[in-house]
Amino acid sequence: MLAETIAVLRHVVLFAFKEDASAETVEAVVAGFAALPDAISEINGYEWGTNVSPEGLNDGFTHCFTLTFASAESRDAYLNHPAHVAFVKSLGQCLERSLVLDYWARLPAGPVEEQAVINATVS
Amino acid sequence: MLAETIAVLRHVVLFAFKEDASAETVEAVVAGFAALPDAISEINGYEWGTNVSPEGLNDGFTHCFTLTFASAESRDAYLNHPAHVAFVKSLGQCLERSLVLDYWARLPAGPVEEQAVINATVS
Repeated sequence: MLAETIAVLRHVVLFAFKEDASAETVEAVVAGFAALPDAISEINGYEWGTNVSPEGLNDGFTHCFTLTFASAESRDAYLNHPAHVAFVKSLGQCLERSLVLDYWARLPAGPVEEQAVINATVS
Repeated sequence: MLAETIAVLRHVVLFAFKEDASAETVEAVVAGFAALPDAISEINGYEWGTNVSPEGLNDGFTHCFTLTFASAESRDAYLNHPAHVAFVKSLGQCLERSLVLDYWARLPAGPVEEQAVINATVS
């Protein structure tokens, strides 16, 4: 029996920086991305981190940012928002490559405590 | 002032299938991945979806799977688990490329209702 679910739209962004990008430049990009949720109300969730996988399958990508939206319209509003457009424009000089993939995630409906994606605690 | 946070380890997996991979084969891979959370207790969160980004920056990757772990040890236990090893072995014939990136996400501690990553509702 399938439990009732809700859908959220995940927006996964991977960055690979140019070799000559300074630590200060990378920090500024991270700070610039982190400022977007305050500027764009359509962003419902935001998290990021740097690669710690031991598998060596990250193909040069070092940073991952995952944004959550409630709808495709909210995602589109984010993409077209002046704050996002300005942020993207600022990346040209320091990014080697980027990769973006959006997907709809089905999460169990009901009490948020039961939503698997956050059903994690620090041991 | 920084709010108290907890950390969870996200394990992001992207798949690009070979052109000649049949729909049945792709479905079997998705089903095989989806069976891992029941087989491996260290998996605290699991979600997946196919790319719906309008940006065209997915570099051929069509499927994204995001697993959540409470610790690096739990992630390692997953990587070495016989069920995961067997699943990976089954992929060789149909996967064109894969990409894996793990990152620690800081989530606000306290009531899970305040955790940004799941603070999303369907409009």
